[in-house]
Amino acid sequence: MTSKEPRYSSAIDALKQKTRLVPDFPVEGVLFEDLTPVLADPEAFRLIIDDVAAEAAKAEVDLIGGLDARGFLLGSAVAYCTDSGILAIRKKGKLPPPVHTQSYDLEYGKAALELPAENLDLDGKRVMVVDDVLATGGTLSAAIKLIEQCGGEVVGCAVVLEVAGLGGRERLGDVPLYVVNQQATES
Amino acid sequence: MTSKEPRYSSAIDALKQKTRLVPDFPVEGVLFEDLTPVLADPEAFRLIIDDVAAEAAKAEVDLIGGLDARGFLLGSAVAYCTDSGILAIRKKGKLPPPVHTQSYDLEYGKAALELPAENLDLDGKRVMVVDDVLATGGTLSAAIKLIEQCGGEVVGCAVVLEVAGLGGRERLGDVPLYVVNQQATES
Repeated sequence: MTSKEPRYSSAIDALKQKTRLVPDFPVEGVLFEDLTPVLADPEAFRLIIDDVAAEAAKAEVDLIGGLDARGFLLGSAVAYCTDSGILAIRKKGKLPPPVHTQSYDLEYGKAALELPAENLDLDGKRVMVVDDVLATGGTLSAAIKLIEQCGGEVVGCAVVLEVAGLGGRERLGDVPLYVVNQQATES
Repeated sequence: MTSKEPRYSSAIDALKQKTRLVPDFPVEGVLFEDLTPVLADPEAFRLIIDDVAAEAAKAEVDLIGGLDARGFLLGSAVAYCTDSGILAIRKKGKLPPPVHTQSYDLEYGKAALELPAENLDLDGKRVMVVDDVLATGGTLSAAIKLIEQCGGEVVGCAVVLEVAGLGGRERLGDVPLYVVNQQATES
């Protein structure tokens, strides 16, 4: 802990000040929000983690599910803060067999998420799935199905940013969604 | 925190009990050590993070550099514990331009690591690079060069496991290496 004055009034303020905005990436017309500088800033990082961890604690999680790869950057610290474990939900082909697999559609083609099918007991475990951005919701909804297929219960999803208008929120069904960048700020 | 009896006497004991060993992956003759069940176990995860964080605190780090992707699973919590930020060191092609790039050789072909070349000031920052496994050291040594190229100072590397006999340690040069699975256990 430093004794300096806080530079950000909230997680949302930290995001506003530190996010790297890159126009026309990955395609023309899209404004890419690169969180790298936010997470590399100790004070901004802490505000965001504490925010998500408070939500995870309320949901009484046993495990934080982190989405490969940027969800790991948030999920690990949130897991530590909530005395839970970090469940790495991997992209297809990263894990040795046997694995559980859940496929999902991309704009062009297919992708899949995997979890080990041995030495990992998710039965009855309360899992919150964490990622940086919710866009179309394809990856998050596949992660929910995969965890349920392994016997776990998804008690919530948390993301830092939501890209509106892509129907992502609707694809999560009944699973509660927490978005860091949409919370009412308290003064 | 639970009030249960501890199940592991140390981080090394937790690794011994929870690592998923998969023979002949990714190629015949290699014993793959899958840490997924270790990190998903709250008590094992905490022991490993606390172990690396103690080392990072001694090195007075400003930032933890996490290697894409499994290094993120450790680096984020270590950064939180040490009141530092998590610097995501990305695989080539994940970040919008402009980026700093450092290439390195793989067994077949080449790969590269990248960091944003704007909105990120590493000048004079003390960075510890964290990953799960040290094998040939190609990725870690590229990460060291990349951070130095951006003005940062690499004050140490920390990994959970070291695969001996591949020359990885030698490729890190003068940068101190900490290996969780090789510490003398205290009783």
